[in-house]
Amino acid sequence: MKFLSIRNLPVSLLAGTIAAIITMQTTSIAAPQSTTDTVIERSKILTQPGVFGVFTMFKLRPEWNKIPETERMDSAAEVAKLIEKHKDNVLVDLYLTRGLETNSDFFFRINAYDLAKAQTFMREFRSTTIGKNADIFDTLVGVTKPLNYITKAKSPELNASLGSATYAGDAPRYVIVIPVKKNAEWWNLSFEQRLKEMESHTVPTLPYLVNVKRKLYHATGLDDIDFITYFETNDLIAFNNLVISLASVPENKYHVRWGNPTTLGTILSPENVIKALAE
Amino acid sequence: MKFLSIRNLPVSLLAGTIAAIITMQTTSIAAPQSTTDTVIERSKILTQPGVFGVFTMFKLRPEWNKIPETERMDSAAEVAKLIEKHKDNVLVDLYLTRGLETNSDFFFRINAYDLAKAQTFMREFRSTTIGKNADIFDTLVGVTKPLNYITKAKSPELNASLGSATYAGDAPRYVIVIPVKKNAEWWNLSFEQRLKEMESHTVPTLPYLVNVKRKLYHATGLDDIDFITYFETNDLIAFNNLVISLASVPENKYHVRWGNPTTLGTILSPENVIKALAE
Amino acid sequence: MKFLSIRNLPVSLLAGTIAAIITMQTTSIAAPQSTTDTVIERSKILTQPGVFGVFTMFKLRPEWNKIPETERMDSAAEVAKLIEKHKDNVLVDLYLTRGLETNSDFFFRINAYDLAKAQTFMREFRSTTIGKNADIFDTLVGVTKPLNYITKAKSPELNASLGSATYAGDAPRYVIVIPVKKNAEWWNLSFEQRLKEMESHTVPTLPYLVNVKRKLYHATGLDDIDFITYFETNDLIAFNNLVISLASVPENKYHVRWGNPTTLGTILSPENVIKALAE
Amino acid sequence: MKFLSIRNLPVSLLAGTIAAIITMQTTSIAAPQSTTDTVIERSKILTQPGVFGVFTMFKLRPEWNKIPETERMDSAAEVAKLIEKHKDNVLVDLYLTRGLETNSDFFFRINAYDLAKAQTFMREFRSTTIGKNADIFDTLVGVTKPLNYITKAKSPELNASLGSATYAGDAPRYVIVIPVKKNAEWWNLSFEQRLKEMESHTVPTLPYLVNVKRKLYHATGLDDIDFITYFETNDLIAFNNLVISLASVPENKYHVRWGNPTTLGTILSPENVIKALAE
Amino acid sequence: MKFLSIRNLPVSLLAGTIAAIITMQTTSIAAPQSTTDTVIERSKILTQPGVFGVFTMFKLRPEWNKIPETERMDSAAEVAKLIEKHKDNVLVDLYLTRGLETNSDFFFRINAYDLAKAQTFMREFRSTTIGKNADIFDTLVGVTKPLNYITKAKSPELNASLGSATYAGDAPRYVIVIPVKKNAEWWNLSFEQRLKEMESHTVPTLPYLVNVKRKLYHATGLDDIDFITYFETNDLIAFNNLVISLASVPENKYHVRWGNPTTLGTILSPENVIKALAE
Repeated sequence: MKFLSIRNLPVSLLAGTIAAIITMQTTSIAAPQSTTDTVIERSKILTQPGVFGVFTMFKLRPEWNKIPETERMDSAAEVAKLIEKHKDNVLVDLYLTRGLETNSDFFFRINAYDLAKAQTFMREFRSTTIGKNADIFDTLVGVTKPLNYITKAKSPELNASLGSATYAGDAPRYVIVIPVKKNAEWWNLSFEQRLKEMESHTVPTLPYLVNVKRKLYHATGLDDIDFITYFETNDLIAFNNLVISLASVPENKYHVRWGNPTTLGTILSPENVIKALAE
Repeated sequence: MKFLSIRNLPVSLLAGTIAAIITMQTTSIAAPQSTTDTVIERSKILTQPGVFGVFTMFKLRPEWNKIPETERMDSAAEVAKLIEKHKDNVLVDLYLTRGLETNSDFFFRINAYDLAKAQTFMREFRSTTIGKNADIFDTLVGVTKPLNYITKAKSPELNASLGSATYAGDAPRYVIVIPVKKNAEWWNLSFEQRLKEMESHTVPTLPYLVNVKRKLYHATGLDDIDFITYFETNDLIAFNNLVISLASVPENKYHVRWGNPTTLGTILSPENVIKALAE
Repeated sequence: MKFLSIRNLPVSLLAGTIAAIITMQTTSIAAPQSTTDTVIERSKILTQPGVFGVFTMFKLRPEWNKIPETERMDSAAEVAKLIEKHKDNVLVDLYLTRGLETNSDFFFRINAYDLAKAQTFMREFRSTTIGKNADIFDTLVGVTKPLNYITKAKSPELNASLGSATYAGDAPRYVIVIPVKKNAEWWNLSFEQRLKEMESHTVPTLPYLVNVKRKLYHATGLDDIDFITYFETNDLIAFNNLVISLASVPENKYHVRWGNPTTLGTILSPENVIKALAE
Repeated sequence: MKFLSIRNLPVSLLAGTIAAIITMQTTSIAAPQSTTDTVIERSKILTQPGVFGVFTMFKLRPEWNKIPETERMDSAAEVAKLIEKHKDNVLVDLYLTRGLETNSDFFFRINAYDLAKAQTFMREFRSTTIGKNADIFDTLVGVTKPLNYITKAKSPELNASLGSATYAGDAPRYVIVIPVKKNAEWWNLSFEQRLKEMESHTVPTLPYLVNVKRKLYHATGLDDIDFITYFETNDLIAFNNLVISLASVPENKYHVRWGNPTTLGTILSPENVIKALAE
Repeated sequence: MKFLSIRNLPVSLLAGTIAAIITMQTTSIAAPQSTTDTVIERSKILTQPGVFGVFTMFKLRPEWNKIPETERMDSAAEVAKLIEKHKDNVLVDLYLTRGLETNSDFFFRINAYDLAKAQTFMREFRSTTIGKNADIFDTLVGVTKPLNYITKAKSPELNASLGSATYAGDAPRYVIVIPVKKNAEWWNLSFEQRLKEMESHTVPTLPYLVNVKRKLYHATGLDDIDFITYFETNDLIAFNNLVISLASVPENKYHVRWGNPTTLGTILSPENVIKALAE
């Protein structure tokens, strides 16, 4: 049964249809609910559904340079302490973009089972010395969900290929974040049509899984985008070829936003990100 | 009789047509006029037609951090006093967005029978300590009107379903505001065509009414949008699925703006919003 | 004779065509020239063709709050004096938008027979205390012209209806300014086609003339818009219905800009506008 | 021979085609080269091809008001001296936009045979008192070239009409600058098609040449526009009618940008522009 | 084999297809890997594939003018010292745009075999006196790759023509940087179709190679563009004609961004760029 067919139904049939939809939908809503244990384990929280991701891009104000260098350097410890304080609530990653981006110098990725706790961390960061001397350029909010298209049931060969392709490169030094929004035509395709498009989207990415790690957050309604795509790599030319492959399939024709901004940074410990900005 | 058919009428028939339209329209104009009692009751003003809604998103300036903390904390009482002063004129809600949004730290929703009184409240807020240290990022102005499409007369089954679906979740912790603008093609559809589209828009939302509360303001001509859609929920994954459902019906193809910005915040008392920002 | 048909003429016929056009056009250029008497009478200047309109939207800078309140209050007299000084050159209206708009706190409408005199007034305003503490958000420049489409000769019934419909509401408390730009397809329609579209645009507005006053300035070439539409009303719900009616006719499909920004404010004397901002 | 036809040629034919193109093109490149005499004569430099035009729009910062008035007034002499210093390298015009524009208070038009010399003048202006207190809002760079479409050879009647139509109004008090960008469809038309469109563009402008002066700079590749169109007039209603005429021909359908911004100002001596801003 | 055809394959065939793609792609990924010798030679690094290019456009803040002139002049030596420090890691070029551009005063082009080293240089520049007094307006990141379309194998005649056309003008005084983004339709064309379009794009550029030097960086996925095109010339009228030629081929119809911004500057030594800004 498709929602679109409702347009052609006599109104008198709607009541029964509605009842059926309610049953079906509420079931699927239950599925991606988050687990309730609140201790954060990196390997777990980064692979589970029902986890919120908050990306916040910051740009230092010129006033940052007027703070004495020792005080700037102390920021690294101040932020480390804040991360420690919230370690049962949020997983914090920090990346360095100064030198590679126009509108940011560094950005956070916060993972949390409860979005309000991610908000609290980011709010408290704003009261640190570096937080008070930085402007927010962008915030992206999303949530992880179970695989939708390339599942064992719906696309078994591709699912197997995805499962067997594992990252085999050096430790990634680079991070790329690309927000995605799809148009109304995409969302009005039937599930089967979208599955077919996602299959032809997935196939050319397979050779790059050895060089590029990736992670997906869903954002429709939480933000003005549909997806946050997150990548780590040590081979930017492989990554460039991967994105050209993604550009070259029909699914790309349904994008109203793909990047804008694309954020490219380097992967460092939180302490080293802040020290690099404090020098 | 449709307005569009006028294009094909001989000009000599226009005079009579005009007279008929005048009669018809002035009747309908009278309908949504606001009541005249000026004492504000929350449960009443939030359900009546003819009520103006003013949403104002604010971002604190860096100067806010330079004000002594006790003075920042005193702002909570100052704003509470202002709300008390205007309590017979406006209903004031305040929400916290810092940590979840780029361009705002908090926002107001003002409901008022007389728009000028909402303006006066918001103008006086600008002279408070926190108001003087904040920039406006966005203002949305709309007005509530009686149900138009899914009424008892025009769409009885769906109207009944809407009536019987009630919110059954925990107290909502999250608020989402999404402005909407539709294109000229939408407004040039006949009422019957728009009714059909709104029916297929409404059906997939039914299962989510148990998790998501919603409210609608009309804004055409008062602002550069057609609608302000306001949601409260405690289940953001359900909300994400709801918005995907809304994206997946043909009515979405008529949007020229849906969000941009979407505003996501948390629901707190005015006092707690300001205290959170004063910490 | 239409300009477009020139494309299909043999080049050798162009010379005669050109001569004919020169004669025809220079006649029509002469028509809307302004009168030469320079004393400004409100009732006259607001109804004549050939009058320039300059709308300037201002937003106070945070520094305004740091000026002592008595000095802020003195601004009302300073601006009143400036208006008096220029009263033979320009008609000045001032409106309050603070509390209803994001990007402005107040705006001017200047009417003048000579645009350079409007420029001089606005330039001198920039040197007043309030002018020095405000940023310009938007400037719109247009000129009034004789009725083009719904004239006695071209559309007699509608012209009569427009003439007999007069404002009968309370004194308007609200002002709305909506800039309009039409696309190349619109301007490439024949006059007869545009007349037909403007007739179907005008008919649904008739019932609202009792609630809404309106005035039109032409801006093509003087600004990046084609028209400045100016409205006064005391019934914003009627106004909302009026604009929905205008959205629902085919002429709306030719808009590349309609609003963006729409400016909504309250109608007060210049003195009271400045006092409201000085409080 | 057309470039587009190359797509259909067998690759083996390309070499000969290329040789032919090289010959043809290098000839035409030579044509618009600038003359080498470096003394600037207004009447000459404003009519020759191969002359660079740099338009720079400036907006005074609030700090300008804090400079003592005598020092502000001295700026007029400082700028006059700078113009004198560079008088063998650049022709300098200055216009007043304060009061008519949102984003600028004044703008320069620099004409120079050598673009680097225009750059040097504008760079040195930035070190004057007024230059240090102004922000650049826009810069447009173009170059004059020989007539392309309406030449004696290609469109003899129109060329004759253009030649015989001369400005006969009062000394122009107003200047308008409108940047233009055309889309890929335009540039992919054959020369003959573009000639035909430019003929139907030119014909309706003829009656206005008596009221409006105009000048054209080419900008493709030097800037993000294709043309800078510059107008002087004393009759803004005639100018409004002229631009409506230009909007009403099919060539307008190929515009991706026409204005945005349109700049409207008044024509004064450089000294008087700065004095008006210093008052 | 084409990726697009995958859409029409029965799902059961996908596994074999995937294996083939993995083999094919990983081979081509290996090709453009950078060389490992880290000493930078200008003539080598500017012609090799696998070299990263980082373009950063800067605009001086008003505070720059408040620094004593001698200190501003000392910046030239400070930057020269920084370039010397990093000379084994990056090749640094600096260009002057003040006077020709709105949003920048100067810009860097950094070439590096390792992007992280380019980032480090640009980060350290931000701590110099001039770097602390400048805002970034734009950053473009790309990488050089081997020729793709007009190769000896795929387009032998054109390849030969390109090889034989060499710059013969005076030392270029001007630099132009034009970012390019192509739409989904372009990337969904088959390689053969794109080759044909690139041939008709290349042919009209041949006559200009004597006047204009050019260099290409690939940016898909690293930035929100697909290409960074870089030009040097001493003949801006030839350059204007070149870009008109590029606008006039069908390939232009696939651009979603071409310029925006186009950056035009003059070529000077790093020391002279900073001295020109310090005067």
